[in-house]
Amino acid sequence: MVIEARLKELGITLPEPSAAVANYLPVVEEGGWITVSGQLPLQDGKLSCSGYVGGNVSVEEAYQAARLCAINGLAQIKQAAGSLERVRIIRVGGFVASAAGFTGQPKVINGASDLLVEVLGERGRHARAAVGVAELPMGAAVEVEFSARIL
Amino acid sequence: MVIEARLKELGITLPEPSAAVANYLPVVEEGGWITVSGQLPLQDGKLSCSGYVGGNVSVEEAYQAARLCAINGLAQIKQAAGSLERVRIIRVGGFVASAAGFTGQPKVINGASDLLVEVLGERGRHARAAVGVAELPMGAAVEVEFSARIL
Amino acid sequence: MVIEARLKELGITLPEPSAAVANYLPVVEEGGWITVSGQLPLQDGKLSCSGYVGGNVSVEEAYQAARLCAINGLAQIKQAAGSLERVRIIRVGGFVASAAGFTGQPKVINGASDLLVEVLGERGRHARAAVGVAELPMGAAVEVEFSARIL
Repeated sequence: MVIEARLKELGITLPEPSAAVANYLPVVEEGGWITVSGQLPLQDGKLSCSGYVGGNVSVEEAYQAARLCAINGLAQIKQAAGSLERVRIIRVGGFVASAAGFTGQPKVINGASDLLVEVLGERGRHARAAVGVAELPMGAAVEVEFSARIL
Repeated sequence: MVIEARLKELGITLPEPSAAVANYLPVVEEGGWITVSGQLPLQDGKLSCSGYVGGNVSVEEAYQAARLCAINGLAQIKQAAGSLERVRIIRVGGFVASAAGFTGQPKVINGASDLLVEVLGERGRHARAAVGVAELPMGAAVEVEFSARIL
Repeated sequence: MVIEARLKELGITLPEPSAAVANYLPVVEEGGWITVSGQLPLQDGKLSCSGYVGGNVSVEEAYQAARLCAINGLAQIKQAAGSLERVRIIRVGGFVASAAGFTGQPKVINGASDLLVEVLGERGRHARAAVGVAELPMGAAVEVEFSARIL
């Protein structure tokens, strides 16, 4: 229960993992490998951060949105693995809706990376790609996908 | 032959899987895991849908294009697995060339997700990321990549 | 030492693999699968190619930048695998910062694909997705991520 205790210390409550809304799943587990669908910064079903980073959205706001994507992703990983105690994060794919000329995508996706390491320690460290895209679903400023391994 | 029968019922004929055109492969299989290259909405070697969704391309046209990407992807998966009977789809990565302000990428990529579930049933359900990009190869409106597992 | 000899013949010196700069890792190995973070065209710590392909950056310049991303990626793969002798490349994900209307992303990412096959031969052939994005970290024109398998 080390990880659960750490979540409590950090004041983080994982949400109920969202259910599938179409012909895809929020998370797939196969052979010990977990693949999480792209997570949006949704809180209680509402988008917390929309627009374009470097435009109407600041780096700090987008960092918090990426952190929220990671909290939502952890809820999915926990559901798929049964527990977060023996999970290692493998990859984070971060998409940042970017205003023209905004090149600070890594600073934004650090919000997800930092959360994963705060909660999971060394097992939260991962490979990562961060890119700036034109548009994201629902107008979200950030979308983050994850893969993980059950150890 | 359950899946082959279902394809027939649905009136879907998988194309000859396209060959590599450069120093990469349309599909890779390793250790039972299949990775399919980004598929464009090509039919008989011709791009069926080009431009920007939310601009000159409607959501319904792009949905059909994503469906075609999935048909092309299934042809590759069948080639790699030998058969579709024992295949599970793991992940769909959908890229939608998006006009400014278009945020309906999930509705577009549903064209791929729906096709996979129509053909493969529960084994067609997958994790997914859908994002809106600036430009796609050849001016395609949609590009979709896939990963799958041989069970 | 076949691969090392080929690198020498090609006149390619792999750089010291870059270290992590935040709460993520340049490369992760788990269960024989290697995942490499998105690589930028950095040479001696300096970005070699910035801007938008089809705008201020030519296809040939971007091809060379993608080649450099692959050299940097091979350095990470070698570090994770201990050697390049028994490595197979599985997937290349190529992101090209694209000026409006530029649709030649595959020609750009060929720079990475060609390098991998020059160095690794058949084991360098991979599945691939190439897309055109709005913006990339530090203003890079190209970012490429890799996955590989230790055989």
